[in-house]
Amino acid sequence: MKAEIITIGDELLNGQVVDTNSAWIAQRMGELHIPVVHITSISDKAYAIKKALQQAEERADVIIMTGGLGPTRDDITKAAVADYFGTTLVRNEAVLAHVQEIFHRSGRKHMPAMNIGQADVLANATVLFNDFGTAPGMAVGHNGKYFAFLPGVPFEMKFLMDNRVLPMLRDTYKSDVFIYNTYLMTVGIGESHLAEQLADIEDTLPSFISLAYLPRIGMVRLRFTGEGTDMEALTSLTNSVKEQVVERVKDHVVSVDNRSFEEVLVQTFTDTGVTLSTAESCTGGSISARITAVPGASQMFQGAAVVYSNRAKIDVLGVLPDTLTQYGAVSEPTVKEMAEGARRVFGTDYAIATSGIAGPGGGTETKPVGTVCIAVAGKSETRTQTFHFKNDRAINIERTVVAGLTMLWDILK
Amino acid sequence: MKAEIITIGDELLNGQVVDTNSAWIAQRMGELHIPVVHITSISDKAYAIKKALQQAEERADVIIMTGGLGPTRDDITKAAVADYFGTTLVRNEAVLAHVQEIFHRSGRKHMPAMNIGQADVLANATVLFNDFGTAPGMAVGHNGKYFAFLPGVPFEMKFLMDNRVLPMLRDTYKSDVFIYNTYLMTVGIGESHLAEQLADIEDTLPSFISLAYLPRIGMVRLRFTGEGTDMEALTSLTNSVKEQVVERVKDHVVSVDNRSFEEVLVQTFTDTGVTLSTAESCTGGSISARITAVPGASQMFQGAAVVYSNRAKIDVLGVLPDTLTQYGAVSEPTVKEMAEGARRVFGTDYAIATSGIAGPGGGTETKPVGTVCIAVAGKSETRTQTFHFKNDRAINIERTVVAGLTMLWDILK
Repeated sequence: MKAEIITIGDELLNGQVVDTNSAWIAQRMGELHIPVVHITSISDKAYAIKKALQQAEERADVIIMTGGLGPTRDDITKAAVADYFGTTLVRNEAVLAHVQEIFHRSGRKHMPAMNIGQADVLANATVLFNDFGTAPGMAVGHNGKYFAFLPGVPFEMKFLMDNRVLPMLRDTYKSDVFIYNTYLMTVGIGESHLAEQLADIEDTLPSFISLAYLPRIGMVRLRFTGEGTDMEALTSLTNSVKEQVVERVKDHVVSVDNRSFEEVLVQTFTDTGVTLSTAESCTGGSISARITAVPGASQMFQGAAVVYSNRAKIDVLGVLPDTLTQYGAVSEPTVKEMAEGARRVFGTDYAIATSGIAGPGGGTETKPVGTVCIAVAGKSETRTQTFHFKNDRAINIERTVVAGLTMLWDILK
Repeated sequence: MKAEIITIGDELLNGQVVDTNSAWIAQRMGELHIPVVHITSISDKAYAIKKALQQAEERADVIIMTGGLGPTRDDITKAAVADYFGTTLVRNEAVLAHVQEIFHRSGRKHMPAMNIGQADVLANATVLFNDFGTAPGMAVGHNGKYFAFLPGVPFEMKFLMDNRVLPMLRDTYKSDVFIYNTYLMTVGIGESHLAEQLADIEDTLPSFISLAYLPRIGMVRLRFTGEGTDMEALTSLTNSVKEQVVERVKDHVVSVDNRSFEEVLVQTFTDTGVTLSTAESCTGGSISARITAVPGASQMFQGAAVVYSNRAKIDVLGVLPDTLTQYGAVSEPTVKEMAEGARRVFGTDYAIATSGIAGPGGGTETKPVGTVCIAVAGKSETRTQTFHFKNDRAINIERTVVAGLTMLWDILK
């Protein structure tokens, strides 16, 4: 059993929109042990849609296609797909009633006439009713393959996958071959140094277990993949390889499951009953936004002060004007006072503070773009460090976020 | 002239990583008027790499392939590509010296032996020296087509595209057909209502101009595309269609170019010399992070208070304890005091405040998950509004960010 994802839209091909749907769908398919073998983004053109369906049918058993089901004229997927299957579109009264209800529930009195066309569905399809939008999904069985056609709007697609497509696939398809993935997240060590430390373990890996290095800014995620028919033995063997690796590089391991760094931090803080706040200049609230995106963060996170101006650093966090004058806003003494100020103002056990020159403007001879100072204040000490990043604004902000979280992780240990 | 992008990596196919490289590359190719017609993500397997190259060669003239060039064993792109071209890998001493220099510049004394292999390049390739990492890129001309092989790490890939690949393409390929894209961003109106208002304009569009609706949470971007050989006439005609549309829906238009909503806001604030701060509860710093991601935001943005706890709302922003007791943290009176507190604390002309139940926990009978109150304080008035969102935490946070920025935009007008 193999799956393929086709996403439709000129906005994907011209780079206006990043295709996040495919990764989400692939994760869900993985949970059903149906590996995605191919992801394709194509144009809103009938020939491109038909050609992609034909090639996908040669490679995969389950084909998920998203996009081009909206009410506007640039949405041509339904007509192209009907042509591919040699079928027609028919008005479905139940869908029409559903579309009207969705419209009225959103509080709008008037439904534009073009939305009526959304009730036209493939004659050979099972309708996948969409509770979150006016475009219905459709499922088609054809040549022994399963096709799902879904809207491209992410939360509508997700609703239809979770409530219509995946339950059906779960019931229908059972695979003999299991794929077991397990993850490990490391910080503070580069990809090749990590690989060097693990060389002998990789040398002795059985052929059905593979190890992949997934580097990101400031961290490397390791993926251990086992593939075989005996789920239990496979899981146990893959896990034992992973345990060897954890033992080898344990100082760098922040997560032994598929959780993100910030999820691990939120959990650790919550479990130990300690609290966090942040004082952010160059990161502009990104550390706080990252932490508070985790459900349940409100127990351990008390607040953040984003202090772009010197005045705010003084007024909100109690940074001494003398410190700013003598050392400047981007300095270890300043971030130390910011972190300690955040601990005091928000009444937390720990605080992270950042100040730096993210760029592209603001650099000087002595403090070029990429100069960043970070402090982490804990119960008994405050640690500070200065970093020299380069690259562009977005990367400098991201590096600062990860470096700050890594310093927090180190002080917690 | 057409281009195709192939991204390699099992982490893309299992959904662990979202492919953001393709959108970035596609934008850059668009600037050279070389449209991307196909984007494919494939596995780290030799047969998948070779098959994808073969299919791409049938469709496109320029093929950009990223990923699998690292030093670890899961990186097999070079060997597979050498096989595809019927060539070999040869050790390149200049590349080796470059890899060693990159390594030593990063401050590490010891270079793992596996990095030596990164100096092995395709015998038929031009080396694309990588200033930001140890994996060199390679360019190959084959059957009249141009192939570039680049690392998957985004900032290395971007460096090589901008400094090695694009200058070469710009010099070599000149297309007769121009594609002109221009954009318009609207907020506060749904896709089909927008389309209904524009129906007669769409009816009279010439065949070489197309209009696409790109809905996002809380906003719809419109793309006008003109395609033809006379660049000047094309640009002028496409722009005149766009002007008609702007005139028709002007109350909803926030941007008439390709800038984001927050870029427009930063520019507007900077141009008029006014300042902004935020007081964020449920958005956790996301509004601040969004604003401060824009270069130059430090002129107009003074700071943010992320106040998750009631204590922080009182201590940092001066919210009255009575207000919290009587109306609760998620209420219009509370966000009004938060916004006015932020204006006072940060000394700004405007402030946005948010408080809500983002979920999944924390909902009650009277204030279910998705209940969000937003206030925008300006010089002479503070406006408040209550929203009832649904869906999940991430979507509720995103909707709140966009609703807050939209309220700010409205008060500015």
